[in-house]
Amino acid sequence: MKYKHFVYLPLKRSGEVGKGGVIIYNKLDKESVILPGYPSIKRLVLLSKIRKHFPEGVSVEEKMNGYNVRAVKVGNDVVFVTRGGYLCPYTNSRLKLLYGDSIKEALSELPKGSFIAGEVVGTENPYVRVKYPEAPYFDYFIFDVFVKEDGKYKRMGTKDKYEFLERYSLKSVRLMGVFNAEEAPYKVKEIIDKFDEEGREGVVLKDPQYKRPPAKYTGSYTNIGDIELGMRYPFDEGRDYLFPRIVREMFKVFEEELDNESLKSRYEWLGKAILGPSVESIRKVANGEALYERFVLRFPERSDLEWYLEYTRELGINVKIEDEWIEDGLIVVRAKKFKDSTNVIRSMLETGQTPLD
Amino acid sequence: MKYKHFVYLPLKRSGEVGKGGVIIYNKLDKESVILPGYPSIKRLVLLSKIRKHFPEGVSVEEKMNGYNVRAVKVGNDVVFVTRGGYLCPYTNSRLKLLYGDSIKEALSELPKGSFIAGEVVGTENPYVRVKYPEAPYFDYFIFDVFVKEDGKYKRMGTKDKYEFLERYSLKSVRLMGVFNAEEAPYKVKEIIDKFDEEGREGVVLKDPQYKRPPAKYTGSYTNIGDIELGMRYPFDEGRDYLFPRIVREMFKVFEEELDNESLKSRYEWLGKAILGPSVESIRKVANGEALYERFVLRFPERSDLEWYLEYTRELGINVKIEDEWIEDGLIVVRAKKFKDSTNVIRSMLETGQTPLD
Repeated sequence: MKYKHFVYLPLKRSGEVGKGGVIIYNKLDKESVILPGYPSIKRLVLLSKIRKHFPEGVSVEEKMNGYNVRAVKVGNDVVFVTRGGYLCPYTNSRLKLLYGDSIKEALSELPKGSFIAGEVVGTENPYVRVKYPEAPYFDYFIFDVFVKEDGKYKRMGTKDKYEFLERYSLKSVRLMGVFNAEEAPYKVKEIIDKFDEEGREGVVLKDPQYKRPPAKYTGSYTNIGDIELGMRYPFDEGRDYLFPRIVREMFKVFEEELDNESLKSRYEWLGKAILGPSVESIRKVANGEALYERFVLRFPERSDLEWYLEYTRELGINVKIEDEWIEDGLIVVRAKKFKDSTNVIRSMLETGQTPLD
Repeated sequence: MKYKHFVYLPLKRSGEVGKGGVIIYNKLDKESVILPGYPSIKRLVLLSKIRKHFPEGVSVEEKMNGYNVRAVKVGNDVVFVTRGGYLCPYTNSRLKLLYGDSIKEALSELPKGSFIAGEVVGTENPYVRVKYPEAPYFDYFIFDVFVKEDGKYKRMGTKDKYEFLERYSLKSVRLMGVFNAEEAPYKVKEIIDKFDEEGREGVVLKDPQYKRPPAKYTGSYTNIGDIELGMRYPFDEGRDYLFPRIVREMFKVFEEELDNESLKSRYEWLGKAILGPSVESIRKVANGEALYERFVLRFPERSDLEWYLEYTRELGINVKIEDEWIEDGLIVVRAKKFKDSTNVIRSMLETGQTPLD
């Protein structure tokens, strides 16, 4: 695929470089890089087991709800790569405007091939739209710096990483604390309960020196909230969202030992997350509407918008621009992304039959 | 595979004879039969569409919750075949004792290769245990008679079928009524609401002359109840049970237009069906227990029990006899069937990690 003066090849198979790896070539500088996929992080479902996984203590970072983007230098330029190994033109144009120079400067300090990884969050993106008080529209919070040494990648330890990012005025995800193994389960429980109240996703647990693999843990707000979001489009995301998140919640409820009243409201919350949005979507389709996500994107240049539209066409995503205007020198568009669930539900409403059994 | 003086080959692929078909050879009589699979019945999720599928009226039969068994003559003997195309020795021994002669007589009246299909229900079986007032232990309710004509199978129409079965003192599933297209959705709704209260599964809708393919519809008691049963063994049945049944319930809720209070209790019911039994199972495994189903089986002869045990070994099902005694001349055993979920949950409790993401 191509984007501006870059040609790139996402590596689908999980091989040496991991899933989501990509080969990128910069035609201007005639330089290329192989960027490995972002390594998948194991998920804990029992807080009591933090001790077992981090016997020497743990640093707890916020896990934000957005989309994972890696940044790497190719020649004299920086590119931003999504989890799947794509150079999304929207993400590239906005991140370049915001942090292009400082990220390039930061990466220049590190060995060639080193890269950073972070979460793009906020409401102005085509992927995951969550409004954070600290990032209502569009921002980038870094959680990992991968330093390439002797052909291998080593994550920077917590302390070095925060100092490094601060030096270049780059934002990082919040460090919620560093705890010893004994106190960690209780401390993380407190954080998760607070996050559940605030509508925040969860945490990533890391060995402060990165001697052990990291682990993630999410709260009910996210386990059940993901189901709620997915079930708006039951035949797109819904089905895949269901079982893994229910399993997380099963173990969370097991560990929490809730009283009857809390248990009852957890049951109702889950049932409502499943049936509420899906029945609402059936109702919409029955009223002749289509199911879609609506979002607002801001592009620095017209060519950025054109690159983005070509990109969605190439990936076969059905995005339709509804409206377009200029604001503060940026091109603003309001767009719709159409969902396949519309057709499945429409056919079920016509025949009254289910395609599943 | 073999059972007594029969050798048989279940046909896994869905071909001419359909999934669950089987070739059976009777070594004594040196005769064989090819029994087709029981045809899958389409499922309706909207009662309002009954009119579309049955414009000339519909006969409504109770769909009972047990397991589907076909009976066919092979030589001078009758065999009973499960949905998958197996000759379960337990099912064969009990059904033969109860109805062997009358079914043989009934099938002798029909062309060779004709067969009947019905539901084995009650608490005394290794598969689906539901206590019906009309069949607390073990019984067989026939719903279809397939007559072979010119190499094809034709279902008997409602009236002929009920007369035919009555003539041989065979039990049939209940005929709930025959309705015209206009009234059918309301009548079926009444039946389903009553079934939901009584804890009954649902209905099968048939064109009285069998000119149109039949359709089934189940109530919330079954949609959500199946989830509740399956989630006791979340990594065995649970996962597969979830999505299709949620989809049925989505459309049921859409069509019902429930008030807020009823909607709230439906949400709670679903959430509880998912989290209740699964958390209870985690608790059991955490206490060192294994997850299993327990059931009681009655065998006419010791050799029947031995055939059954060989059968479970051959199919790789982990059944353990706990206790055995004689009652009214029958051999009674209490058995346990062990579930794979035990191992998955045990490993998750040890590591605190999920294998799913």
